[in-house]
Amino acid sequence: MSKLIVGIDIGGTNTKFGLTDFEGNVVFQSKIKTRGNGSFPKYITKLAEAIHIGKSESAPEADIIGVGVGAPNANYYRGTIEHAPNLEWKGIVPLVDTLKTHFDVPVIVTNDANAAAMGEMIYGNAKELKDFIMITLGTGLGSGIVCGGRLVHGHDGFAAEIGHVTVNPNGRLCGCGKRGCLETYVSATGIKRTVYKMLADELDDSELRGISFDDLSTKKISECAMNGDSVAKKAFEYTGQILGAKLADSVAHTDPEVIFLFGGLSQAGDLIFEPTRRHLEANLMQIYKGKVQVLPSGLGNQSAPILGAASLIVDHFNNSSSI
Amino acid sequence: MSKLIVGIDIGGTNTKFGLTDFEGNVVFQSKIKTRGNGSFPKYITKLAEAIHIGKSESAPEADIIGVGVGAPNANYYRGTIEHAPNLEWKGIVPLVDTLKTHFDVPVIVTNDANAAAMGEMIYGNAKELKDFIMITLGTGLGSGIVCGGRLVHGHDGFAAEIGHVTVNPNGRLCGCGKRGCLETYVSATGIKRTVYKMLADELDDSELRGISFDDLSTKKISECAMNGDSVAKKAFEYTGQILGAKLADSVAHTDPEVIFLFGGLSQAGDLIFEPTRRHLEANLMQIYKGKVQVLPSGLGNQSAPILGAASLIVDHFNNSSSI
Repeated sequence: MSKLIVGIDIGGTNTKFGLTDFEGNVVFQSKIKTRGNGSFPKYITKLAEAIHIGKSESAPEADIIGVGVGAPNANYYRGTIEHAPNLEWKGIVPLVDTLKTHFDVPVIVTNDANAAAMGEMIYGNAKELKDFIMITLGTGLGSGIVCGGRLVHGHDGFAAEIGHVTVNPNGRLCGCGKRGCLETYVSATGIKRTVYKMLADELDDSELRGISFDDLSTKKISECAMNGDSVAKKAFEYTGQILGAKLADSVAHTDPEVIFLFGGLSQAGDLIFEPTRRHLEANLMQIYKGKVQVLPSGLGNQSAPILGAASLIVDHFNNSSSI
Repeated sequence: MSKLIVGIDIGGTNTKFGLTDFEGNVVFQSKIKTRGNGSFPKYITKLAEAIHIGKSESAPEADIIGVGVGAPNANYYRGTIEHAPNLEWKGIVPLVDTLKTHFDVPVIVTNDANAAAMGEMIYGNAKELKDFIMITLGTGLGSGIVCGGRLVHGHDGFAAEIGHVTVNPNGRLCGCGKRGCLETYVSATGIKRTVYKMLADELDDSELRGISFDDLSTKKISECAMNGDSVAKKAFEYTGQILGAKLADSVAHTDPEVIFLFGGLSQAGDLIFEPTRRHLEANLMQIYKGKVQVLPSGLGNQSAPILGAASLIVDHFNNSSSI
């Protein structure tokens, strides 16, 4: 009888979920809206039903052997979601305990970027790596840090919030309440803010002057840059400059072999990779120079969030059997 | 027959060495000059002879079971010292191989601040901790990072150079060749530079105006601050402000339970701890606030460098026996 893992990615808008085997073959995936389902237990009941139905239709004979979840502000040690600003459930939500009423198997949660890092190690481009950093560029900037082959969780389960290191203490207001956090500059939202700042400060002609903030997207800025729009090009250069400089500080912490970029902004390819690499290298200490690669994630597809979450269970069983 | 460990701390001026047991009782310690001994093999021969003589006089019956070494720019994986700016041997020096010609036991090296972190975990105030950061405040700022009970070495053996994260890319020139590194502000030398900057910029009366840069010391600045000297007080506030702000970035990487401060500048007590704690707390993300302590090292004595180095061997045997 085949063994399958449930992978769940809880986002602010959608909850994606699916079933995968240990090799990363996704046999089923779907999604529900994260909001508007009533209480947290009701949401989990709806999610569990959808998973059970999906399983009965796609792999009725298989055994579910674990549930992995990536979620914002998820705490690995306590199995909770804590004070997540983009979710409608406030305070501390007992994620693992509630899921366990529906699945009598190991349930492991961590934040979505940590899950992505684990996914990269189990299914992606980090299979041979022991020391790397995953940067996820979405609405914000998430991160996962792997040292010596282990995901760093920290003493309280909240390690790897590189999106909230400070670029400028008097800088842009961040959703976290601080000012000048890295993600206010480097993320889908961050580059939009940079474009608007440049449109305010400079007089360059730009197609971007005709687009509202709400309508502006990374994809559009990318297209404009490819067409030679000077504001769009400068916005990517500025984004890479800040990301590269701050990643040099990250290297001075954990000395990774590779830094992976994942998510929307990383789809811009060389527009973001080239300045990031250049400014990283310029800011590295001599002992690190030429030794740290910045590469695209190997999880570049629709199933990535599900594989990331599921990989937590693969890692759990790998470590259980090796001890 | 008792078992003893050799601990060696190679500094720019002196090489300290000693013999300790697994409980941290130092049965012998001494030092030689690091410079002026000729070639690297000749220096190691002199060092080994001094250790063998010390052992024959203090513990002739004991067995030496390992040699731990803390040294600047030491590489844990390769057993080398690489391009250390403050040592007279240039390029890559085969530290472990040369020591092994004199000691037929495990020899483990790492940089001095990593050794201090390990010493804190084995013999000091971090015995119960799995996640902490050690900051050593000497001529420069060294650091060691422990995650999940393991020292972070990084992919290339050079992790934890927090002294070289960037405070200001256009700031003070650092010995490493970069500008604006943390250690140019926060270290024994850093606070002297801050005093001199303040004496240049402001007109405050200050006893410090009568002291040359070469004669100025952390101890003197400390005494002046205790006596109410406004420049000295402002220099400590500024040092703590920069250290606290940058440590908030370190917390966003590895989420430590405690950050230990060790070395000369930490002897200033509340003059440095109070502003560091205040500015750390002010710069932390909400999820970390009130959860990270800044404490003095428990290795506050003359034997600390030897214990730190020796602890590498204790850790080696602890991990060997547990696998």
